[in-house]
Amino acid sequence: MRGGTFEFPYDKLLIATGAAPHVPDVPGTDLPGVMVLKNLDDGRKMKQFLQEIPVRKTVILGMGYIAMEMCEAMRAREIEVDMVKPGPVFIPWMNPQLASLVRKELEANQVGVHLGHLLHKIVKTEKGLKVICEDLILDCQMVLIAVGIRPCSELAEKAGLILGPSKSIAVDKKMLTSDENIYAAGDCSDAYHVVTGQKTWIPLALRANRAGWAVADNVLGAGIEVEGVAGTAVYKVFDLEVARTGLSVEDAKKHSFEPSEAVIESRTRAHTYPGGSPLFVEMVGDRKSGRLLGVHIVGKEGAAHRINAPAVALHAGMTVEEFSQTDLAYAPPFGPSWDPMLTASNQLLKGM
Amino acid sequence: MRGGTFEFPYDKLLIATGAAPHVPDVPGTDLPGVMVLKNLDDGRKMKQFLQEIPVRKTVILGMGYIAMEMCEAMRAREIEVDMVKPGPVFIPWMNPQLASLVRKELEANQVGVHLGHLLHKIVKTEKGLKVICEDLILDCQMVLIAVGIRPCSELAEKAGLILGPSKSIAVDKKMLTSDENIYAAGDCSDAYHVVTGQKTWIPLALRANRAGWAVADNVLGAGIEVEGVAGTAVYKVFDLEVARTGLSVEDAKKHSFEPSEAVIESRTRAHTYPGGSPLFVEMVGDRKSGRLLGVHIVGKEGAAHRINAPAVALHAGMTVEEFSQTDLAYAPPFGPSWDPMLTASNQLLKGM
Repeated sequence: MRGGTFEFPYDKLLIATGAAPHVPDVPGTDLPGVMVLKNLDDGRKMKQFLQEIPVRKTVILGMGYIAMEMCEAMRAREIEVDMVKPGPVFIPWMNPQLASLVRKELEANQVGVHLGHLLHKIVKTEKGLKVICEDLILDCQMVLIAVGIRPCSELAEKAGLILGPSKSIAVDKKMLTSDENIYAAGDCSDAYHVVTGQKTWIPLALRANRAGWAVADNVLGAGIEVEGVAGTAVYKVFDLEVARTGLSVEDAKKHSFEPSEAVIESRTRAHTYPGGSPLFVEMVGDRKSGRLLGVHIVGKEGAAHRINAPAVALHAGMTVEEFSQTDLAYAPPFGPSWDPMLTASNQLLKGM
Repeated sequence: MRGGTFEFPYDKLLIATGAAPHVPDVPGTDLPGVMVLKNLDDGRKMKQFLQEIPVRKTVILGMGYIAMEMCEAMRAREIEVDMVKPGPVFIPWMNPQLASLVRKELEANQVGVHLGHLLHKIVKTEKGLKVICEDLILDCQMVLIAVGIRPCSELAEKAGLILGPSKSIAVDKKMLTSDENIYAAGDCSDAYHVVTGQKTWIPLALRANRAGWAVADNVLGAGIEVEGVAGTAVYKVFDLEVARTGLSVEDAKKHSFEPSEAVIESRTRAHTYPGGSPLFVEMVGDRKSGRLLGVHIVGKEGAAHRINAPAVALHAGMTVEEFSQTDLAYAPPFGPSWDPMLTASNQLLKGM
């Protein structure tokens, strides 16, 4: 083991190379103060930079959930924030009514949201950094690149392993790659989607963790199979919770479903109980099979936890009608007697 | 229609007589200041009494969720509360570790919890009321009877309709009684339990509401079938949330399952995220079939909303292993990367 290369014999090999942040291929992304946030070390660097340099404004490239979570972290330090991305739609996978609530929450917290501005370059100025985009120039002291990640599959690709969606490493339910002695687990590997039955690449913590445990068992001969993912994800944007599981309308069309969609406004608590607030649900079903395909929720209270009931329904392959019949909890502090999931189901059924 | 009796011809009849509070058959339950809480009018009477009489202490008979919710309402008015019941176990259907957390929450809010004291009588004194039990005498100005309810099925019984559990009115999935022209819906009627497949009587708001809608459709010829109940219920006890769905260990034994139980302590938020608190889960599965049978949750945050995922799993007839593979949401403000439901499932699987 020297000179940067080494050789190890193996009986079974696990590739757990994770994912790496996308960095736009423009000048200036290597300047001091331009950062990514993927691992703990990145976070530490960011904290250190904030201690050394008086940052009054951060520009965040990207509008995914890492980008949005970082808005809150910056605003908590009274740092101004501008977000920018090239695409014209704020959260493309979500119904515009729900997406606009998230945007309003950002803007209510003085975050600038700039859509449709392609990044040209980042340059150093006397006062800090200048982010130069199509029709937009933003001055700041810090730039956070949060435009997504890619699986670290170069080694696997060079070894001739079959790759899956987004060049993630293709694995079966036992986490075995196309080589019978090589496993892959974590953000570098793909998964089956429980709704489509097709391969997908949705790098999230639970799947990565679960896949790692399965490989440990399987290297020891257990033969454990891990079921697919539903793409369940939640995040917090200031006082708002945003949740998703399953397919969006667009996802559903791509996979040859005939999606029908309902958007409802309900409440986080019974109307007689103090302190409630609006809760918005988007539910998608398939006209052909009647199946539940996906759910998005936005609200200030309980939106995140509420996504797990439809996530389980997706695993069970339930129809919207079956889901609409489930016995969900009711007490005044926690929702209306018809849970918002049930109201959305009933509304969706009318149009299916 | 006069003299207290009347006759109406009908094509289809709906019995929606609801339920009535149990009142112990002892002297003094008819005294002023001794009350039940079942409907809005009962609540108004209670409020009026509190305005007219300076109540320093209320004795609550019973320790169900209505009793516990009333503790909070009384303590918010700085009224002392003592709860009393004849049985020796605080929450008999829940694992003692979880039940003790609920009891501690009551006691931390200065609620006296008196188990194993049979009520003998209530008497009027110069200063108010005296509740006289086996080995216990409690002075107070108000007594709240919350020892459960019974279905109002006398009319149905006299009409010769078949009755179900606890003398509730037996209905099929279309809410039809044993008479093909008589429906029953609401707290007076029974339901199928989705775990046992047997009839049960669990009077709760969602089922009552859902059954009412179904009858309206079916009287008009729709032929709608309503699925069963999972017995999902939640309530709030001061800062604690308590949730249940499905069968307890005792329920499971009664229905010839071979229950295995796991109790775990997890957290409401990721350990790196501020403001989290312990969350306790009791999960019950069947050794024979591997099926998930029931879940209880106690915690300060999200316990109520978390019960709906296992409730859906019960409707789908999932095994504990299938449930353990579900893709539940993770973000640091909302829980650990392994959701407490998954940790409980994994722990339960080890013993099955």
